[in-house]
Amino acid sequence: MKIGDILTQVKEGSLTVDEAERILRKESYEEMGFAKLDTGRKARTGFAEVVYCRSKADDFLLQIYERLYEQNGEVFGTRATEHQYELLRAHFPGIVYDPVSGILKIDPETPRTLSGRVAVCTAGTADIGVAEEAAQTAEYFGTYVERIYDIGVSGMHRLFSKVESLEQANCIVAVAGMEGALPSVLGGLTSRPIIAVPTSVGYGANFHGLSALLTMINSCANGIAVVNIDNGYGAGYMATQINRLALGAGFTE
Amino acid sequence: MKIGDILTQVKEGSLTVDEAERILRKESYEEMGFAKLDTGRKARTGFAEVVYCRSKADDFLLQIYERLYEQNGEVFGTRATEHQYELLRAHFPGIVYDPVSGILKIDPETPRTLSGRVAVCTAGTADIGVAEEAAQTAEYFGTYVERIYDIGVSGMHRLFSKVESLEQANCIVAVAGMEGALPSVLGGLTSRPIIAVPTSVGYGANFHGLSALLTMINSCANGIAVVNIDNGYGAGYMATQINRLALGAGFTE
Amino acid sequence: MKIGDILTQVKEGSLTVDEAERILRKESYEEMGFAKLDTGRKARTGFAEVVYCRSKADDFLLQIYERLYEQNGEVFGTRATEHQYELLRAHFPGIVYDPVSGILKIDPETPRTLSGRVAVCTAGTADIGVAEEAAQTAEYFGTYVERIYDIGVSGMHRLFSKVESLEQANCIVAVAGMEGALPSVLGGLTSRPIIAVPTSVGYGANFHGLSALLTMINSCANGIAVVNIDNGYGAGYMATQINRLALGAGFTE
Amino acid sequence: MKIGDILTQVKEGSLTVDEAERILRKESYEEMGFAKLDTGRKARTGFAEVVYCRSKADDFLLQIYERLYEQNGEVFGTRATEHQYELLRAHFPGIVYDPVSGILKIDPETPRTLSGRVAVCTAGTADIGVAEEAAQTAEYFGTYVERIYDIGVSGMHRLFSKVESLEQANCIVAVAGMEGALPSVLGGLTSRPIIAVPTSVGYGANFHGLSALLTMINSCANGIAVVNIDNGYGAGYMATQINRLALGAGFTE
Amino acid sequence: MKIGDILTQVKEGSLTVDEAERILRKESYEEMGFAKLDTGRKARTGFAEVVYCRSKADDFLLQIYERLYEQNGEVFGTRATEHQYELLRAHFPGIVYDPVSGILKIDPETPRTLSGRVAVCTAGTADIGVAEEAAQTAEYFGTYVERIYDIGVSGMHRLFSKVESLEQANCIVAVAGMEGALPSVLGGLTSRPIIAVPTSVGYGANFHGLSALLTMINSCANGIAVVNIDNGYGAGYMATQINRLALGAGFTE
Amino acid sequence: MKIGDILTQVKEGSLTVDEAERILRKESYEEMGFAKLDTGRKARTGFAEVVYCRSKADDFLLQIYERLYEQNGEVFGTRATEHQYELLRAHFPGIVYDPVSGILKIDPETPRTLSGRVAVCTAGTADIGVAEEAAQTAEYFGTYVERIYDIGVSGMHRLFSKVESLEQANCIVAVAGMEGALPSVLGGLTSRPIIAVPTSVGYGANFHGLSALLTMINSCANGIAVVNIDNGYGAGYMATQINRLALGAGFTE
Amino acid sequence: MKIGDILTQVKEGSLTVDEAERILRKESYEEMGFAKLDTGRKARTGFAEVVYCRSKADDFLLQIYERLYEQNGEVFGTRATEHQYELLRAHFPGIVYDPVSGILKIDPETPRTLSGRVAVCTAGTADIGVAEEAAQTAEYFGTYVERIYDIGVSGMHRLFSKVESLEQANCIVAVAGMEGALPSVLGGLTSRPIIAVPTSVGYGANFHGLSALLTMINSCANGIAVVNIDNGYGAGYMATQINRLALGAGFTE
Amino acid sequence: MKIGDILTQVKEGSLTVDEAERILRKESYEEMGFAKLDTGRKARTGFAEVVYCRSKADDFLLQIYERLYEQNGEVFGTRATEHQYELLRAHFPGIVYDPVSGILKIDPETPRTLSGRVAVCTAGTADIGVAEEAAQTAEYFGTYVERIYDIGVSGMHRLFSKVESLEQANCIVAVAGMEGALPSVLGGLTSRPIIAVPTSVGYGANFHGLSALLTMINSCANGIAVVNIDNGYGAGYMATQINRLALGAGFTE
Repeated sequence: MKIGDILTQVKEGSLTVDEAERILRKESYEEMGFAKLDTGRKARTGFAEVVYCRSKADDFLLQIYERLYEQNGEVFGTRATEHQYELLRAHFPGIVYDPVSGILKIDPETPRTLSGRVAVCTAGTADIGVAEEAAQTAEYFGTYVERIYDIGVSGMHRLFSKVESLEQANCIVAVAGMEGALPSVLGGLTSRPIIAVPTSVGYGANFHGLSALLTMINSCANGIAVVNIDNGYGAGYMATQINRLALGAGFTE
Repeated sequence: MKIGDILTQVKEGSLTVDEAERILRKESYEEMGFAKLDTGRKARTGFAEVVYCRSKADDFLLQIYERLYEQNGEVFGTRATEHQYELLRAHFPGIVYDPVSGILKIDPETPRTLSGRVAVCTAGTADIGVAEEAAQTAEYFGTYVERIYDIGVSGMHRLFSKVESLEQANCIVAVAGMEGALPSVLGGLTSRPIIAVPTSVGYGANFHGLSALLTMINSCANGIAVVNIDNGYGAGYMATQINRLALGAGFTE
Repeated sequence: MKIGDILTQVKEGSLTVDEAERILRKESYEEMGFAKLDTGRKARTGFAEVVYCRSKADDFLLQIYERLYEQNGEVFGTRATEHQYELLRAHFPGIVYDPVSGILKIDPETPRTLSGRVAVCTAGTADIGVAEEAAQTAEYFGTYVERIYDIGVSGMHRLFSKVESLEQANCIVAVAGMEGALPSVLGGLTSRPIIAVPTSVGYGANFHGLSALLTMINSCANGIAVVNIDNGYGAGYMATQINRLALGAGFTE
Repeated sequence: MKIGDILTQVKEGSLTVDEAERILRKESYEEMGFAKLDTGRKARTGFAEVVYCRSKADDFLLQIYERLYEQNGEVFGTRATEHQYELLRAHFPGIVYDPVSGILKIDPETPRTLSGRVAVCTAGTADIGVAEEAAQTAEYFGTYVERIYDIGVSGMHRLFSKVESLEQANCIVAVAGMEGALPSVLGGLTSRPIIAVPTSVGYGANFHGLSALLTMINSCANGIAVVNIDNGYGAGYMATQINRLALGAGFTE
Repeated sequence: MKIGDILTQVKEGSLTVDEAERILRKESYEEMGFAKLDTGRKARTGFAEVVYCRSKADDFLLQIYERLYEQNGEVFGTRATEHQYELLRAHFPGIVYDPVSGILKIDPETPRTLSGRVAVCTAGTADIGVAEEAAQTAEYFGTYVERIYDIGVSGMHRLFSKVESLEQANCIVAVAGMEGALPSVLGGLTSRPIIAVPTSVGYGANFHGLSALLTMINSCANGIAVVNIDNGYGAGYMATQINRLALGAGFTE
Repeated sequence: MKIGDILTQVKEGSLTVDEAERILRKESYEEMGFAKLDTGRKARTGFAEVVYCRSKADDFLLQIYERLYEQNGEVFGTRATEHQYELLRAHFPGIVYDPVSGILKIDPETPRTLSGRVAVCTAGTADIGVAEEAAQTAEYFGTYVERIYDIGVSGMHRLFSKVESLEQANCIVAVAGMEGALPSVLGGLTSRPIIAVPTSVGYGANFHGLSALLTMINSCANGIAVVNIDNGYGAGYMATQINRLALGAGFTE
Repeated sequence: MKIGDILTQVKEGSLTVDEAERILRKESYEEMGFAKLDTGRKARTGFAEVVYCRSKADDFLLQIYERLYEQNGEVFGTRATEHQYELLRAHFPGIVYDPVSGILKIDPETPRTLSGRVAVCTAGTADIGVAEEAAQTAEYFGTYVERIYDIGVSGMHRLFSKVESLEQANCIVAVAGMEGALPSVLGGLTSRPIIAVPTSVGYGANFHGLSALLTMINSCANGIAVVNIDNGYGAGYMATQINRLALGAGFTE
Repeated sequence: MKIGDILTQVKEGSLTVDEAERILRKESYEEMGFAKLDTGRKARTGFAEVVYCRSKADDFLLQIYERLYEQNGEVFGTRATEHQYELLRAHFPGIVYDPVSGILKIDPETPRTLSGRVAVCTAGTADIGVAEEAAQTAEYFGTYVERIYDIGVSGMHRLFSKVESLEQANCIVAVAGMEGALPSVLGGLTSRPIIAVPTSVGYGANFHGLSALLTMINSCANGIAVVNIDNGYGAGYMATQINRLALGAGFTE
């Protein structure tokens, strides 16, 4: 609802002053004391709330899962620990935990239909955890995902065999640690927009992912933009935005 | 042409061995001695070659502009200097130079039709040079661009007045220096994918743009990916890829 | 007592040479062997000593709590561990420990009256530990604190609903991790001086809080100064100094 | 004017829908094409707009000075060059330029009355440029400033002779380059809140001011907050906010 | 087999289209689901696959060892843990684990003949783990290795007694932590190419090996190139390449 | 023995060729396989070997203590763990362990006479571990040490009361973490050469001691040189060198 | 000559004590006051002295060229300026200057025969200056060089067409700026040892070559070692060492 | 004069209260408006004031030279420019300027007697400017200096020929850029305390001297402490302090 419409309705009396004030202030959140749950989020952006589990206190996490499950009939959380899985399993027997990606989710009763196509690639096997965070996030938001793992530059022939498959995606998520050259190489071989995800995989002068981040940010190839180190979630989110645009679906599912 | 097709044609004799070898090796570039001009680029990716002028020697630059103009009837260059403009003007009287963005271009005879919609925003007036590199790059590739400048966080009411306009874009390019908070704020207010461009604008602990880069990479808002400091070209390129997807146009114009 | 006064009293004989020397050397501390307890601190600055518990040896910590309790009838410590709480509880049954902020304190018999108004805000729920260190420090020094948590930029409407409340404070403490954009946004919306506290919350290229620190230091908004990463104590202290000035109370309680 | 009031007036007809919309959107800026001049700023925050001259194009700078002079009868700019002074002097004969601080200002006809007290200190003589930016900014906003220069730690007796003078200020601005120890030492000797300004003065491992910035951010003394390297303006601004609070004057002059 | 040859064979019918396509795509890897095992590697490069054990999941590691042992009759892994040794010993009783270097290997039935000569040196005793990774890697690839440990610059006479021995090597691997001066000193005393390996040995401003890395990269001595911090494997690999060249053996064993 | 003398003796026959060669090569170390024990060190430099215990394998450490005890009747080790103490106590009942500094030593039968005077200061109590490493190292080499702890800048009057005591030292070792301002302040108050030791004490932007290191390196005070973060040993060693010079004792005890 | 031989000759009288002392001390340099010219260098290492021209004073440079020309009949200098060329041309009419690489040399009368094969590659045209420093250095030392320029990853088909040519080299020098991915890609396609040279080409977060350096140091491909940013000379030197080994020529020409 | 003495004299009337206050406050400086000239410095520390010329305004510099010449009959300044030399030569015809080190001095009528012995070494010829700053500073303070230049590790035999000479110094100043290994090597060969001076000489990953600084700070050799990058003055100062101690001369000349 646009501001002019709101004011016109106030003037016409079809909206009370109080209600208009609430809308204008956009108080569409639920105050939980320790947090302000963004309940209007899906309506506003087309993307339901995702729970970042890391370092949340046990009872806070439980309350959030309970409240979101009540509201949406499903919950999707990232960066969860084994301990948090045990904790929540007592309350939600159907909860599923993937130790590789740290995703902890309660699936909806009716599985979501996936559409469009996003490719999620990794340079090595150690990058799979981050890639799965990206892939499952995109799937949670309704995107069809093609996984292409372990195609890093140290054995380029593996990558070449997948170029045609990559060209069929609306968007490519390229996950790589160490020197992080994968997005540059993909950028030189395909025409798809690439979301590059540096990972903290490596040792020594990788500086916990800084090396891969700098490589990707400085890429001389075209059509590459970068998210934070290990930020699979962010890549899956933006890949979904692009995939929806390609589907002509706007930003709501 | 797929590899299997090539080989089948070789077997059938409709393609000579030499020709097939050339295609397989993809020698679709022009050897200029000092450079290998990527002449097949537009056919391959839907994006014509753009000249990065900075630090190119005078005669190299001239040769490249001559060769590209001959081939395409237009040339688009970034990061050019006043000196390079003077140099090329002697050969191309119709060449146009924009000192704010450093763009040096020979427009085609028939102006390009612009379609879709990308918003290019800046936090301050000092970011306009980078923003123009992004905007004019996107326009060169056929994208309609809405410019929204000087809406940084130090006077947030300026930004609020533009939110509806931002929501109509397929993609937002957000250009900011100093602390670089603009993309985060836009990410909290709109649902569009945002390409964040940190600039070197600022002083002291901005470390020539590192501060803005880190802010954007660490954004807690969703739907943000980042390109290099001052890389307007890269942002304009990727915004075009996304805009074309939204138009259902694929990656060719 | 000013130096001139001291010397006049010496000349007049109302002060012995020894005593004057002691005052001039300001030996107003208590030598504890491993430490020099600053017993004159409250008289000198209006702020009683606060114990930084982290990495203090058990018996050292105990001696300091005993000595300060004896002297002041209350003790306030920061960055304490569960173990230190167990240790001291054996000697001070009324001691209180807050595991979120790490504050370990023995309250005085008569609760302190709180006056003025300081707002302590966080961007997210993970910043609450640091925010509580700031808030409880300010309260220990007699400041009334308004807590406004979880108003980060990823859901800006939560923040907008609190602007009027923020404007009523004499000073705002803004606590944020990740990209740390909260102080910039507050600086663009309010007229209060802001003490910005970067936190180590986040991952990847946040570099343990460096990203948030740089954002805050480079803010283009006015009226922002920054303390160390996770330094809630320092922010609570300076907010109290400003609040006291606003109360016209000088720097003593 | 509060939102509820605006809506009530719309309902009662004393405010048109258009006008209310404009207020709610807070379009209180003047669109200048290349910039959005924040004309409502002084009313909103009690601080008039200050011009950051560095790297502004000649005609942009001239337009801004003309527009602000027209509106306020005075203009205050920082980081100006000799060239910019020459440029503007042709239009404003009474303009004054201070090459040490880079301040370029047109004073109002009636000099401003200065009140309260802020001390601006430097460690060395090379820090005076930044200190003057702080001092003159504070004076522009109506603050009385006491200048205490060249009291760095390499000759501590110079500092000791000024402690009483420092204690009379409501707020201390401490400007230092190289190792930047001055704010720590002042924090150990006075009870006033200190705004620390690291400068880029020094060489070698000072890393253009990073060394001084880190020193100040890590200070073990109490009551210190830090602004950007060489950011005299920011320190003068915040010192004024604190000084006004101490005067009980709120945030308007 | 060169591309022209392949195509000629296709034309002549001595190679099927399918087979040619497979060769051209170089699909010479084995898809294991979680990984693409590079089975053609030894044929292609003369170096068999080495397993980087760190952070590989238990069953993945086991599958890889099983598959490689089946194929080659030996397996060589680096950065293995005690736990991984226990795990694999249950399946390969003859497996050998060296806790100093973390090497976990199954030796072939017939010991390999070692030829040529590479010197592996360390500055201190704490660098021996990395040095052993280099030495044993080189030995795995058939290189004869001379170990010269604990010859750092703090006791230069130890180094001088070994200069003649160093001159007999085809290549020197110099392993050093802390300030990492050993390769520079060796470069000033010998004429052999030196592969410098910085280690994370040290504390404080060594920044986990960055100090040693910078020292080695900036060396004013000739004939030094550097690999990653603690990368003994990489040094052993390249030393073998150089040793084989010196033996006139090309790059296959 | 000078080279000329050696050669003359060879010519005259009073030295065999073999013996001369050994001397010239200075093979005055004991090869222990994993290490080359520098047995000629005390004769050469006047300082006996000190054992850096950290990360030495158990049996290596034991062998070194045994060999050095046999040779010198005393052993002095730094950075030892509780575990290493337990290990060695079984073999050397008289061994002494100081958990604060990590020093693990077997004292000689006759206590060493201490001479000269070195002052070892700390800013806070958390710096005492590093200070004790410096103090006990200096004592091991025969230096008389005055300990002055907890005189940091946050309570400057504590420092002032010790200035005269500091002036009596030949050399001052100043140990400080956080912002590390202590050496600068001492440099402004005394005329003694100062060896500054940054410590990793602090949090946030102290970057594990980097902040204190940069402060000390950039000090504007005179007569300050810096050793590595937490390097008490290095400071105690160099302080001894200077103290011996002041005693006119040369570099031997 | 080995030490034992020298001493034996002294004993036998065939070598005087003075002469032996001179040899043992290796005083094979020429004292020029401001410098110690390493005249024995070529004899000792097989590589003649190369002049690093940057920032050498005019008369120093002239003296060095004169002395080396006298001695060797040729001189080879790197990083020379136009000004230095003008200066020396007055004395050496036959001197040649290459402004792209900064090489300033006087060729010998008889051209050197080049042998073996080293490939020098660049990612882009802006890297050619550094590549020429490497190529011409290698040629100065007698190595045959194959130049392969502008084969960066943004147009991978250019690189693929050169793989066979690369495989014929004994050693590859890979020069790249920006993200520096070229050596990784080459490492995945060829079996030759690669000396990676990061360049300062790029902007923004390339940090003057640091980005490319980190990429190359962290490469997951095998057989890569790295020299300093822009250090073409160092790469050409080491490539020559390896090429000579492959020729079985040892380290002398 | 000790504090007790002052107070006793006040009591006895032999010192007025005003005078005592002045002494206690140590107002022994001359207020010059822009600076506080430390006139009591030589009396207090035994070292006369040295002028740091860089970036001092012309008239300030002139006033300082005039005032110091008046007081001491000589002036010694560092980091002066050609321009400053021209400026001052008009007033002091006897002034001497050394463009290599930037020292600008007016010698006293009677040349100073030099005593003791300090060795100042450089790794290369480009380090001589910094070394001369150290050497001439030490000479200004009365120290005899032995210069040993161009003995870096790339030609170690040059260094070996100077070891005996180095052993005769009371203190060694070791100046080196690039990888900065010289102090480590000297520390392994001599028993003298070493003041290490990193220089900004080098390129690429030397990061303007950071590389050399880290090398020196992390040195595994004993008896090394470090001053700021290019800080020859600081090294010359501290070397003098140590030299004076060795002469038994205390800290006054």
